[in-house]
Parts: sequence; structure tokens; C-alpha cells
Amino acid sequence: MTHYKLTLAYDGTNFAGYQIQPHQRTVQGVLQKALGKMAKVDSIHIDGSGRTDSGVHALGQVVSFDFPIEIPEQAMLRAMNSLMPLDIEILKAEFAPEDFHARYSAKGKRYMYRVARGRFTDPFNRLYTGHWPYPLDLAKVQIALDDVVGTHDFTSFAASGGVIVNKVRTIYEATVRDDPEHNEVVFEFYGNGFLYNMVRILVATLLEIGSGRRDVHDFLRLYEVKDRQQARGTAPASGLYLKEVYY
Amino acid sequence: MTHYKLTLAYDGTNFAGYQIQPHQRTVQGVLQKALGKMAKVDSIHIDGSGRTDSGVHALGQVVSFDFPIEIPEQAMLRAMNSLMPLDIEILKAEFAPEDFHARYSAKGKRYMYRVARGRFTDPFNRLYTGHWPYPLDLAKVQIALDDVVGTHDFTSFAASGGVIVNKVRTIYEATVRDDPEHNEVVFEFYGNGFLYNMVRILVATLLEIGSGRRDVHDFLRLYEVKDRQQARGTAPASGLYLKEVYY
Repeated sequence: MTHYKLTLAYDGTNFAGYQIQPHQRTVQGVLQKALGKMAKVDSIHIDGSGRTDSGVHALGQVVSFDFPIEIPEQAMLRAMNSLMPLDIEILKAEFAPEDFHARYSAKGKRYMYRVARGRFTDPFNRLYTGHWPYPLDLAKVQIALDDVVGTHDFTSFAASGGVIVNKVRTIYEATVRDDPEHNEVVFEFYGNGFLYNMVRILVATLLEIGSGRRDVHDFLRLYEVKDRQQARGTAPASGLYLKEVYY
Repeated sequence: MTHYKLTLAYDGTNFAGYQIQPHQRTVQGVLQKALGKMAKVDSIHIDGSGRTDSGVHALGQVVSFDFPIEIPEQAMLRAMNSLMPLDIEILKAEFAPEDFHARYSAKGKRYMYRVARGRFTDPFNRLYTGHWPYPLDLAKVQIALDDVVGTHDFTSFAASGGVIVNKVRTIYEATVRDDPEHNEVVFEFYGNGFLYNMVRILVATLLEIGSGRRDVHDFLRLYEVKDRQQARGTAPASGLYLKEVYY
């Protein structure tokens, strides 16, 4: 057995998310089947760094697996890309130490969220951005982002349905930048872990603050109340990208 | 009756082309139905500047039509966008002189073609570019583009099936530029008219010249032979954009 680490990008639009599910097109399902084809078995189990939902994209998802044949890294890269559909690209294939696990070895993750600012939806970006046509004061968003950085109980920012009890996470970095060329604002969040839908709920709350619909320091209140109903909005999946996983 | 001119952008991916067809989702069909809805009739006939094929995009398609009610330009813009699916955006709505016809009044058109240069297909650009991973000498392409500019018989560059007999067209401008930020090369063609699939065949031939698979002056031979079989390739629809129509 040879242990591998793959880094990949995908357009999440036409996947029912990362995680394998019966009768659905999933990223994990497509990868496991392709590896199975190479090894002439049904399927090779892979471990991903974490799930992404339907419509959520990845610029640097990471998976790890044991493969029965030792194939050089470059040959693995070429072979896998030749078996991939056009909405997945394998960026890198590497040998990994036996104890490397895409999920358990991860020390942190970076997500990006793109928000289109046009008056109407741009047809070419509808699948790759969220959309917020309202006036937005980035200075207010910046003040709120300073409240996001640090170690907090993010209960108010986790969609229900998760089984995770401890909802304390540390955000090392939270930024927003204006991208006037594309008429977008782009958020990035780098932290030790993220709860279900957390980035999308953070972004929705930040946009409401930037448009004056919430107090700039509403995050401090939301950490206290630990109530998902108070944060309300969830920005659409289309704007969200898993950008990098850190090991 | 009030006569209108609309300028619109669309992502051609999920349309069976511009032109209306029974039981198919087309740009013309969607527009005619929306205008019909506003006027409380079944459908309002529109004239487009020309067809685009399935998968071909538009950044500035133009249509004209008579509308039974006089609606201010900005109200027409807002109303139409509120009725559009997310893959069409109305960019401009204007009153037009009665004799304005999107097709017959057009004096020229500009097309753009985006070619992705990466080793593998980028998942996020697969619907919005063609792909040419081979070495490409842009100096050779530039020499060939100088042969494209001017008045020529483009019989070798017209897909069969058209009913047009006169295949002489004038290209005023034909350019290529490197876009290293996106790892693309971008072609533009501005001319008085274009035959069926002409831009896509031009691009395929230019890429073959740039990769040394054809003589740099092969265009001169192809104008002479007037034989579609000699030009062979057709670049994919996904890279093609109707950029502007000139009146």
C-alpha cells in the first residue's frame, strides 16, 4: 500500500456536495470511482479534509488514501486528471506519510467568500458569487471582522443539524477586500475549524452590518445569546470556496 | 406602439442558442415570453442582431421590438430584469427610432474568444473558455492575424448548412492578447459580418498556426481553395462571446 495526498479544485455547482451519497453525484464518489478504475477494483476509500455542501466550490480541497500500487506522483496526477470530469481538477499528487489523514491531520482551513456588488445578477458570476446590491460600508464590516477574530463560541453561527457539541472555534484571520475590477467584495476566514454553514452565516451577518441593518458590534451580542435564530441569514453556497487546508 | 432597443448579456451554457425553437430553452424565447407577460399577451416578437449557438455567450447582444405600452427606459430595464432568469442580464433599455432593426441596422460586430492555456481544464472556466494546452507562439499567430484582416472570401471558414451564397466579409480588426493573470489568450474580431461558425473556425486555425501545425500564411491558401474541409477544426462554443454590435 502507498499512501497519497491529493489537492484538488472543483466547481461545486453540479455536485450534491463533497460527501458520498447513494444515487447522487458527489466529489468523493467521483474520486473513489476513478481510483477504483485505476486499481481495477470497485472503489478506493478516501478521506477528505471535510465536507463541502452542494454548490460550494474548492480551490484546495485535500484528500488522503491508501493505494494498492505505487505510482510516481506525476503519473498519479496525469492519470487522475485523465479520469476526472471537467468540473474537477487535481492540482497536486504527493506521497504522504502513513499517518497522514486529510481530516485529522488538518491544523486549519481558509475559506473565501465572493460577493457580487452589481445592481442585477451578472450571468457569468451567478454560480460563483453571492449577490448583495445594497449600499455597503466596508469600514463597518472591518470593525465587525475585528470582533470575529479570536476564540469564540460560534453557536449562533452554526446551522442546526450538526452533532458537534463544542462550538468554540478560533479564527486567526478574517479580512475583506474590495475588488473594483470585478465589482466584488471578497472575504477570507482562516481558522482552526468551522461549524456547519458557519462561513455563510458569518458573511450574511457581516453584510447586514455593512448595510447598517445591525449594530457594528452585534457579534459580541450574538456570541453571548448562543441562538442561531438571532443571526438569521445564510449567504448562498455559490459564493463560498474552500481555499486551503493547512497541515 | 413604442419601439425599443435592449442590450443584454447572457451565459449561453444552458440555452439551446439564441434563436427560438419549439420545446427548447432559448434566449429569444425567454425574452419574448417576459415581454408578453408585461403586456399581458402570449408573446411579443423581437428581432435579434443575429443568432448565437448553444453554449455561446453574449456580453452585448442587441434586440429590437415594438411594445404596446410606453414604459420609461429605466422602468423597462428594471421590469425586464425582474423577469429574467439569472443567466440573462438586461444591460440597457432604450427607445429606438421606428426604423431601427437589431439585425438589418447593424453595421458590424465584435466577437471575443477566450482560450485557457493550463495543462488541465480549469473547473471554473470550462464553460467560459476553449482550452489549448499546447505550446503556442503568439508571434506566429500575430502574423496570421494580419492575413485575417481585410476583405476575403471566407468559404473555407463557414460551417456547411448556411444558405448564404456570398461569403465575402470584411474584418476590420483581428487581435490576440496574452492574459497571464488568467493564463489565457484572448482573441477579438471586429468585422462587418460573420458566417456560421466562422469565428470558431478562425480560432482553431490560428491555434494550429501558433503551435506550428500549419504554415503561418496558410490563411492565404485557405482563401483560395474555398474548401471547408481544409480548415477542419472548430473551437468549442464555450470560449465564444458576442461582445458588441455596432450601429
